Amino acid sequence: MNIERWVPLVGWLRSYNRKLLSRDALAAVIVTLMLVPQALAYALLAGLPAEMGLYASMLPLVLYAIFGTSASLAVGPVAVAALMTASALSNFATPGSPEYIGAALVLAALSGLILIAMGVLRLGFLVNFLSHPVISGFITASGILIAISQLKHIVGVEAAGHNVIDLLGSLLSQWQQVNMMTLLIGLGVWGFLLVCRKRLNKWLMALGVSAGAAGLVVKAAPISAVIITTLLAWGLNLQQHGVAVVGFVPSGLPAITLPSLDQSLWLGLLPAALLISLVGFVESVSVAQTLAAKRRQRIDPNQELIALGMANVGAGVGGGSPVSGGFSRSVVNFEAGAATPLAGAFTAAGIVLSTLLLTDVLAFLPTATLAATIIVAVGTLIDLPAIKRTWQYSRSDGVAMVATILLTLLHSVELGIISGVVLSLGLHLYRTSQPHSAVVGRVPGTEHFRNVKRHQVETDEQLAILRIDESLYFANARYLEDTVMALAARSPALKHIVLTCQAVNVIDASALESLEAINARLNDAGATLHLAEVKGPVMDRLQHTDFCRELTGHVFFTTFDAWQALAHSANAHQTASSASTPPLPTQPEETTPCSSDTPK
Amino acid sequence: MNIERWVPLVGWLRSYNRKLLSRDALAAVIVTLMLVPQALAYALLAGLPAEMGLYASMLPLVLYAIFGTSASLAVGPVAVAALMTASALSNFATPGSPEYIGAALVLAALSGLILIAMGVLRLGFLVNFLSHPVISGFITASGILIAISQLKHIVGVEAAGHNVIDLLGSLLSQWQQVNMMTLLIGLGVWGFLLVCRKRLNKWLMALGVSAGAAGLVVKAAPISAVIITTLLAWGLNLQQHGVAVVGFVPSGLPAITLPSLDQSLWLGLLPAALLISLVGFVESVSVAQTLAAKRRQRIDPNQELIALGMANVGAGVGGGSPVSGGFSRSVVNFEAGAATPLAGAFTAAGIVLSTLLLTDVLAFLPTATLAATIIVAVGTLIDLPAIKRTWQYSRSDGVAMVATILLTLLHSVELGIISGVVLSLGLHLYRTSQPHSAVVGRVPGTEHFRNVKRHQVETDEQLAILRIDESLYFANARYLEDTVMALAARSPALKHIVLTCQAVNVIDASALESLEAINARLNDAGATLHLAEVKGPVMDRLQHTDFCRELTGHVFFTTFDAWQALAHSANAHQTASSASTPPLPTQPEETTPCSSDTPK
Repeated sequence: MNIERWVPLVGWLRSYNRKLLSRDALAAVIVTLMLVPQALAYALLAGLPAEMGLYASMLPLVLYAIFGTSASLAVGPVAVAALMTASALSNFATPGSPEYIGAALVLAALSGLILIAMGVLRLGFLVNFLSHPVISGFITASGILIAISQLKHIVGVEAAGHNVIDLLGSLLSQWQQVNMMTLLIGLGVWGFLLVCRKRLNKWLMALGVSAGAAGLVVKAAPISAVIITTLLAWGLNLQQHGVAVVGFVPSGLPAITLPSLDQSLWLGLLPAALLISLVGFVESVSVAQTLAAKRRQRIDPNQELIALGMANVGAGVGGGSPVSGGFSRSVVNFEAGAATPLAGAFTAAGIVLSTLLLTDVLAFLPTATLAATIIVAVGTLIDLPAIKRTWQYSRSDGVAMVATILLTLLHSVELGIISGVVLSLGLHLYRTSQPHSAVVGRVPGTEHFRNVKRHQVETDEQLAILRIDESLYFANARYLEDTVMALAARSPALKHIVLTCQAVNVIDASALESLEAINARLNDAGATLHLAEVKGPVMDRLQHTDFCRELTGHVFFTTFDAWQALAHSANAHQTASSASTPPLPTQPEETTPCSSDTPK
Repeated sequence: MNIERWVPLVGWLRSYNRKLLSRDALAAVIVTLMLVPQALAYALLAGLPAEMGLYASMLPLVLYAIFGTSASLAVGPVAVAALMTASALSNFATPGSPEYIGAALVLAALSGLILIAMGVLRLGFLVNFLSHPVISGFITASGILIAISQLKHIVGVEAAGHNVIDLLGSLLSQWQQVNMMTLLIGLGVWGFLLVCRKRLNKWLMALGVSAGAAGLVVKAAPISAVIITTLLAWGLNLQQHGVAVVGFVPSGLPAITLPSLDQSLWLGLLPAALLISLVGFVESVSVAQTLAAKRRQRIDPNQELIALGMANVGAGVGGGSPVSGGFSRSVVNFEAGAATPLAGAFTAAGIVLSTLLLTDVLAFLPTATLAATIIVAVGTLIDLPAIKRTWQYSRSDGVAMVATILLTLLHSVELGIISGVVLSLGLHLYRTSQPHSAVVGRVPGTEHFRNVKRHQVETDEQLAILRIDESLYFANARYLEDTVMALAARSPALKHIVLTCQAVNVIDASALESLEAINARLNDAGATLHLAEVKGPVMDRLQHTDFCRELTGHVFFTTFDAWQALAHSANAHQTASSASTPPLPTQPEETTPCSSDTPK
């Protein structure tokens, strides 16, 4: 029982049968065909040797199959993680150097350990720091950045940089060195893939091909481009014409090794590993949840943390770069009928076979083909209409999103996403730090109270009833003090202030201190503080506090109770009428400590 | 009119008269007597020459008088700012060196510019990041740290360190070098001050002295200790017995100079300057507000930012260390009758006079006397019962407070307060990320709906009504998805899910995306999503979104409307009854796009 909780495989494997096996195997074949070029491409994007992409598609997939809860999630190298890896490692070593490769393994292992720790400690809520607009903006900006970073392979020049300015500057400065043969292959594949994606399906179906078969052909387009251009490069000996190719790929399997244990390297990579794990987890879970829901299944986010963590640790010891759940591959996996996480393990077997058999051939694969594959693939990540939509719906969300996009594009992925998180937290705090509040008066003849600014209601010169439409916590505690004290300073005749708390779900320690300060300051100023409509759980906590003992006024059950007890004239004024009656010479009534048996 | 907004002095000076002048002057004399030893002591605490404390009590006070809005706030060097200054500067230079002094001026100027910028840009809400428990824990820990850091002066040894472990380790290792004469003076003054503070008032009043006069005598205790021990040190030539004294203090006034413009120094000091300004501002404003309320006056927090900023810029160009509003001096200032900010300018004049006349005498003042003064003064900062009180009231506030205290004591002031802020934000997010929610059912025969777990209510097998008691925003958007999808996965017969939103004040872009995902996933699973009781402003925003167009169900005005439209059997089941009726073969009713003219 307990082992099933940590190793879901143990549970579902019992009912595994031949039918599920054939579904998983079919899905694995299709995903493998898609994954081979992607694995190579994302390794190059991360500045790593091509084979590391293949290695990252072996052990991690098997580990995810053991620990994962999603039947559809296709784990492996993904574009955004590759981009973040390149950006993180560039601070530590030269791309492609042994130190760089070693740091990539550490980054994967560290991301894995972070995810496992978050899963075991149930810290999955930390991903809540990443709001939708920030993630969506970050993914869009990453897609643009990745596409631009691949242009150098299409035109056949060397270019470096981790933001749009550096990349474009570097590209433009080498305009003269463009390799026409490379450009031809790059643009050719790009055009071919675009046409396949946008038109091929319709053409095939017009020719009478079934929808399923047409979809399969469209999905095979990248692998066909790989095969065709590899054959071209081999047959025409394009390498001698300056066309860059993938080159030697070792055909063996990776050894299991422990990553470097250099403490300063681990510490230095920690922030990047944290970002990669959080972003990877958010994306994986949202894909997995979407696909699971289509079959009315559920995934367990905390177990997913552990499974993705294991997969990344697997990448770290198995020669791979950081992995996560890929969006498009998962959708393909789902549509191809993957029934259990074992489909991923079969995909890993497919990659092992490919590595053993195909590396001699893949050596001739032009990098321009891979670059074109990436550019077309990341097109699905870029969602520009979302910017307008978000901006129109909420200005503060829009600001956080635009800042994330601009800083990611113009500075770096790290600054982009961190600024987005800080900004969305800051804006949320700003919004809740000034909650809606209203001075309310009695709707004549009823027990209802409404905003004095919007309705014609009865008020009382010596009594102000303030309704706060938000929980009271540290972000708005000082605003509460300001609001109440401003009210007191504005109306010198005021003897009683009632806070009605029907919208207050929580009063934290900061707000409690503020209430104590308000109570004391009003007392100094000769006015009394009362509460009304305090919710049960909130009152339970207030019961034994100094505030409750020192409260100068009552805690009323309803606002109307407060009105009946405190409104000093039977015929209180209409807000509309400007006539003012002289204040009665009554003393504020005797104070009683707050307790649960306050007037009903 | 406009100038009055930025320079409040212009406003209140018009009505300044002889009566106010005499009140301000009297308060200034009393505060000056208190400030002279404190200014010297806090300069030494900050690792600066004694005269810098005096300089920090000149120009800053005049500038605050011009720009400030509090009649009572006594600005100048304070203990916590001195501690934070020492901690920040120790990373840049050796205490007392010219570079160290230069960095202190930069720190003051930078804090000042930050405060002014916050005031002009209306960023005062940033102090909301500092919750009460974090600030209070930080002040307590600072008090303890300051007291321990002063022990070296009491026992007459050299000790260094910025946390309790280093300080105590350093002290204990030099146990042999204790100077008995210094110890005698230190303990003597300490005991004298404690007795004065705890008993003298009662004794004097028992002897028939009036309360006012007694209070004055008690406040003069530190200055008496200064005079007595200075005379002793001078008369007995204690310096030759190894008693450390303040030593040469230049008697002139400081020159106005521009602080160093070294960019790396400014950037390096930026985080520390930010923390010093925020902490100083929070403390100043809460003292100023408390005192203002006692006279039913108001202060303007944004103008206070500018005034405190000007004071710190004044410290930076006028040879002083960072300043802020001191708690005990402000209370004394208030009780002594200070009527306008001009009292502070008069205090500055008093300090100028003291500097011109007394520096020859102050040279003989034992540092042990100052240390004892500080230790007794910071006693008022330490509030240990607050820890227990906070812990009992709210576990998450207690955790943030204890973490702040421990990390401040055991590591450093910077890590302490930053951890506190991060932790309180994280815990707040954690709390609101799992809002209270309840599946509700109909109270039989009424239009009211209550939690099915707590009340005996009618439910319907094909209909679930979920009430969320929190605004929906990025921190709980994923929780909402999980909750709704779990509900759907639990009950396969479910055809309709209604979210009742009476407690939802905001739906941000993240929550909107989650609602879209929920709607699509429920649709995939064959269920329909409805909303009910959506507040006006929330509905206004939803109106033109994709979510609203794609919503598979209705937006109902009330929960009862939803019940009437969707509950499929007239006699819905009691939760108590376990009898189940077979689901009727009705199709889910036709969907209509949400609009304001949904069923009333």
